[in-house]
Amino acid sequence: MIEDKNQEKTALSSLGEFGLIDHLTKQFTDKNSSTIKGIGDDAAILDFKNKSVVLTTDLLVEGVHFDLSYMPLKHLGYKAVMVNLSDVYAMNANATQITVSIAVSNRFSLEALEAFYEGIHKAAEVYGVDVVGGDTTSSTTGLMISVTALGEVDLETVVKRSGAKANDLLVVSGDLGGAYLGLQVLEREKEVFKVNPNNQPDLDGYTYIIERQLKPEARKDIVKLLKDLEVVPTSMIDVSDGLSSEIIHLCKQSEVGCDLYEDKIPLDPQVISTCEEFNMDSTTVALNGGEDYELLMTISQEDFPKIKANPNLTVIGYMTDSSTGMNLVTRGETKIPITAQGWNAMSSDSES
Amino acid sequence: MIEDKNQEKTALSSLGEFGLIDHLTKQFTDKNSSTIKGIGDDAAILDFKNKSVVLTTDLLVEGVHFDLSYMPLKHLGYKAVMVNLSDVYAMNANATQITVSIAVSNRFSLEALEAFYEGIHKAAEVYGVDVVGGDTTSSTTGLMISVTALGEVDLETVVKRSGAKANDLLVVSGDLGGAYLGLQVLEREKEVFKVNPNNQPDLDGYTYIIERQLKPEARKDIVKLLKDLEVVPTSMIDVSDGLSSEIIHLCKQSEVGCDLYEDKIPLDPQVISTCEEFNMDSTTVALNGGEDYELLMTISQEDFPKIKANPNLTVIGYMTDSSTGMNLVTRGETKIPITAQGWNAMSSDSES
Repeated sequence: MIEDKNQEKTALSSLGEFGLIDHLTKQFTDKNSSTIKGIGDDAAILDFKNKSVVLTTDLLVEGVHFDLSYMPLKHLGYKAVMVNLSDVYAMNANATQITVSIAVSNRFSLEALEAFYEGIHKAAEVYGVDVVGGDTTSSTTGLMISVTALGEVDLETVVKRSGAKANDLLVVSGDLGGAYLGLQVLEREKEVFKVNPNNQPDLDGYTYIIERQLKPEARKDIVKLLKDLEVVPTSMIDVSDGLSSEIIHLCKQSEVGCDLYEDKIPLDPQVISTCEEFNMDSTTVALNGGEDYELLMTISQEDFPKIKANPNLTVIGYMTDSSTGMNLVTRGETKIPITAQGWNAMSSDSES
Repeated sequence: MIEDKNQEKTALSSLGEFGLIDHLTKQFTDKNSSTIKGIGDDAAILDFKNKSVVLTTDLLVEGVHFDLSYMPLKHLGYKAVMVNLSDVYAMNANATQITVSIAVSNRFSLEALEAFYEGIHKAAEVYGVDVVGGDTTSSTTGLMISVTALGEVDLETVVKRSGAKANDLLVVSGDLGGAYLGLQVLEREKEVFKVNPNNQPDLDGYTYIIERQLKPEARKDIVKLLKDLEVVPTSMIDVSDGLSSEIIHLCKQSEVGCDLYEDKIPLDPQVISTCEEFNMDSTTVALNGGEDYELLMTISQEDFPKIKANPNLTVIGYMTDSSTGMNLVTRGETKIPITAQGWNAMSSDSES
């Protein structure tokens, strides 16, 4: 978990102005037919032919979005890509290109950046996207990462946040709350380590939730699954800030209400047991935890037979007329209004 | 020149998580037909139909790329867009969309960010680009800006760095060295102000070069001019790091050499007089100054009649066989090899 500080390190300045980006990106090869020319000119050249394009960007800041004391740089590179691809998949699109820009202080060595780009490269390989550009510059403090992702889509099947109708089913992929709890475990181990640096962290019972935090996966597979099932959701969003926040986005932009059933929210057994250990309410964690990068969507009732047997998709409620508001139906069958808390208020993103 | 610190300021935290980006971007309206949906979903939706796309991104870091003690935030917003559009125009493309992401520390007020976005908005208006996304987050120190720009182009007329041939003419738009000298004047005034804060800066004789530094313009007009003249350059790059660095890029990627004539380098009279005042060599300033955001291109000899009468374009040399290398032919008719110095070595960008 803790970085080995005793290796030989290469100073970034030893590579010179243009050597660094060449060195870091030489392993990248383009695979998508829409990539005509990637890295190496004033701009990348892309040709999407008869497809439309989706475009999204995210900024990750050290000390705000990640803590390098428990986040290995390779994982950070991987996660920085996932955060963006998740937004592309939330449009029901196929991710095709990314650009990666970083600002680094001279406290980082070449080997550190190599590890970061190894994670970028791995993500690009696994998800089939081309790294077509970026910018590498120095910063006065810390590490800052800006990733932009592009995807291709048909305008007939692109899914916005705004298409949900009353009576549509509210459906989520995977399970929720794990990434947030993984962070709690890592924060706790960090405090333990501060007190006793010789203490080896015991993370055996937390492997799933820690992986959810350190190495999330964007749900490319769900976009493919929906295509195979011939289901086009009426609206979709990725779960980056917590279920409640995303439900509110869908409801507001679609001008509908929602009944969310507490007992339907999918939770991994490790989430339940860790919630007990931390004395946290698992519903609160799922609602406000964030960083799960699952897809939350609404589906027309007539598509229910196509999805009902699928273990990747869980129906957690249904949309209502906007006049009935957004409600959580508790296990005790009480209705309480859903409010947005997010996981980190202003220190989280306000993304457009 | 110096910010008025006595105004009422609004804390960023008073706007809440999603209020900030809404507030800052509400003035933006989409104008390009390729923008199907801009800000407000997981990703923007774009449709370029039969056009190809160019994509570029740049990162600007406080204390590395700009100094807020003499750079007004509105100008900074404008310049951040220019830096990126310049790369789009260097592909002979038409800029259409940008995304703008910023990380800000809580030392910035809402009014400061409004001024920054006013500059973004102005640039978008003047250059006809749509702001279709971005991310706003907090930083632990300072301001950091990441802009991504997209443009549309026909693959038949896209211009890369790699198409120059021996005997092609080397041509540059506008004049060179002004932005760097403007920076020198501003840095000098900053030092004067530190010693005597009541001293009013006298910048009368430097208006052109200071504007080149604080409010550069990307050469959209040159792309239009080339189209009107029916000239497609054989290679092109924007002058962001200084003429010598850009010539080396064109030569290396085109596998040619170059003879650059010192007496042909276009210099504004204010550049010449300020060089004398600062005891600097104007050729060195033009070669290594950077941030001029002019377009450097190579043009086939047969296109010479089309450009020769044009005051916006200056022939400064010609391309040679790669075996003869890259040379500056001095006023004294001595040939000296061109070397890259850039304007700021590692603290400048190494862009891909």
